[in-house]
Amino acid sequence: MSRKKVVETLRWRRGRLELLDQTLLPDKIRYRPLKTYHEVSRGIRDMLVRGAPAIGVTAAFGMALAARSGARLRPAAFRRHMQKAGKVLASSRPTAVNLFWALQRMGRLMEENAHLAPAVMAEKMEAEALAVLSEDIEINRRMGRNGASFIEDGDVILTHCNAGALATAGYGTALGVVRAAWEQGKRISVLADETRPRCQGAKLTAWELSREGIPVTVIADTAAGSFLRRGKVQKVVVGADRIASNGDVVNKIGTYQVAVLARENKVPFYVAAPVSTIDFSLKSGDEIPIEERPPSEVTTMAGRRITPRGVAAFNPAFDVTPARFVTAIITEKGAVRKPFRRSISALRPRRR
Amino acid sequence: MSRKKVVETLRWRRGRLELLDQTLLPDKIRYRPLKTYHEVSRGIRDMLVRGAPAIGVTAAFGMALAARSGARLRPAAFRRHMQKAGKVLASSRPTAVNLFWALQRMGRLMEENAHLAPAVMAEKMEAEALAVLSEDIEINRRMGRNGASFIEDGDVILTHCNAGALATAGYGTALGVVRAAWEQGKRISVLADETRPRCQGAKLTAWELSREGIPVTVIADTAAGSFLRRGKVQKVVVGADRIASNGDVVNKIGTYQVAVLARENKVPFYVAAPVSTIDFSLKSGDEIPIEERPPSEVTTMAGRRITPRGVAAFNPAFDVTPARFVTAIITEKGAVRKPFRRSISALRPRRR
Repeated sequence: MSRKKVVETLRWRRGRLELLDQTLLPDKIRYRPLKTYHEVSRGIRDMLVRGAPAIGVTAAFGMALAARSGARLRPAAFRRHMQKAGKVLASSRPTAVNLFWALQRMGRLMEENAHLAPAVMAEKMEAEALAVLSEDIEINRRMGRNGASFIEDGDVILTHCNAGALATAGYGTALGVVRAAWEQGKRISVLADETRPRCQGAKLTAWELSREGIPVTVIADTAAGSFLRRGKVQKVVVGADRIASNGDVVNKIGTYQVAVLARENKVPFYVAAPVSTIDFSLKSGDEIPIEERPPSEVTTMAGRRITPRGVAAFNPAFDVTPARFVTAIITEKGAVRKPFRRSISALRPRRR
Repeated sequence: MSRKKVVETLRWRRGRLELLDQTLLPDKIRYRPLKTYHEVSRGIRDMLVRGAPAIGVTAAFGMALAARSGARLRPAAFRRHMQKAGKVLASSRPTAVNLFWALQRMGRLMEENAHLAPAVMAEKMEAEALAVLSEDIEINRRMGRNGASFIEDGDVILTHCNAGALATAGYGTALGVVRAAWEQGKRISVLADETRPRCQGAKLTAWELSREGIPVTVIADTAAGSFLRRGKVQKVVVGADRIASNGDVVNKIGTYQVAVLARENKVPFYVAAPVSTIDFSLKSGDEIPIEERPPSEVTTMAGRRITPRGVAAFNPAFDVTPARFVTAIITEKGAVRKPFRRSISALRPRRR
């Protein structure tokens, strides 16, 4: 069976980060070389890379690039330089918690090795970023196996946005569950919500599944409810940008309504996300800052204005799905169910 | 106050029908002259005109054009000619019941005047189509007044698709309610769902409200649930393409999910439609044929392909909102509430 390899979302080549420019998909496959942490920060902000886990891995390489460029500084200056890099990267996008998780992990490595010379530290940071990358893929594969047990032969799976290989270092969260079920030989197919305004479903999910031969059909976001009501969907699986300790899920705008419609039609609604997406410090989803993106994403399509000149648009990038709509949260450590406050607490990593 | 006149969706000039080409809005205002019933049928199919009441009025003029072109036929040939015209027009689009209502009305006029010469009949048909047009506007104004009583000062009103002047002969159904409330001095604003795939909300609703100075903001269809959940919407008002005798509502794809989300968030959900939109012969919405439109409406945006080549799309044009989600149906004869089977039955016109 000649199957195309899962796409590389980002890669580390000759001391620089190469990001697949997702804004050009599915038309062009082009990697953009990023040489400084400033370029990395802009790349995250402009959504060359998106998806919470992928943003986390990218930020880790941003810190590695910062360390590399500061390797000849004296220790005190190096420390200041790295703190600044952490701040710049943290400000790139506000909602995905994996960004902050990755920056904290890199920061902890610095603290624990404060005695090392900057040049040595820079090498350590590079090795750590590479570890974050390979761990992310391994975590997704484990999550996929855990989630695949919910998927039955013949299922039609509805997904929203892109929680695929392109949203992670590889393999995917929600689409990792799909891939694992497919690899187990289950004959499944995917309904991909278009996901306006940026159409990650129509562009990215459709692209990465179809190139691997997994059946995928695109629908307008307006049609999801109708397919659920007519019994055409057996499972909903989505990713997450941040999960609160009570199980509230922040994800791409439109996720909340799919969750409400799934419950209304008695279809299970699964969220697949690594433990690093859980923000154990947050009591509920409504404490999570929601990014408001430029109205032009709504008022234009494929570069052309569609609304009349002078008409305003609102463009919240994410929404909150209250925990009561979530059937289970699938992580690399297993799937957890209600009551989430307790089951999520059990996932909390023990501090090293 | 200099306020622009409500746009003319269609007009009768020198013995031909002129249709505002809605596929060019909001960029261009261009009327397309239609001289034959075949052209009218194609105009409906290609959605130069859309919206159930507007389709009904257009079909009435299609019959008038047919009668005009057949005015020199002998009575028997004229009758066959008119029957064929009725069939061609009936096949233009399957879901909007007003189309069939208008064709029946024109057909009844023929039957009742079977003794008249074709040339006289042709004049009668023209007069009848003009009556259908002016009655539609009058009906909308009455419906607007009936609906405006539900709207309070300061309300934000969410609407889906375009149920405005452009969907009728003028003034609008759902937007007729908005216009009437606005004319009463209520300070309201409208959130317009973009309404993929054809974006009638972003294009048509935004255009017709903004040119009259009524505040309107466009949102992606994915954001409607989030605005409802956050208490940013006080009322939902939509139109209908067909209403069954139990109160089930067929309307633009995406209406069902807005209705579910409104109920979930305790926001009233109103449907504004003339009595001619009610199909008294249908027991429930699930008996209504749902038009499946070309997948290219989903896979392209502004003429550009967005999904990868070879990826399929489903494109149902309408969905069914079960009556239990509907707070009230607003007609020109008043607003009716549950139990709908009884209240709708009371609206049934007595046969002439």
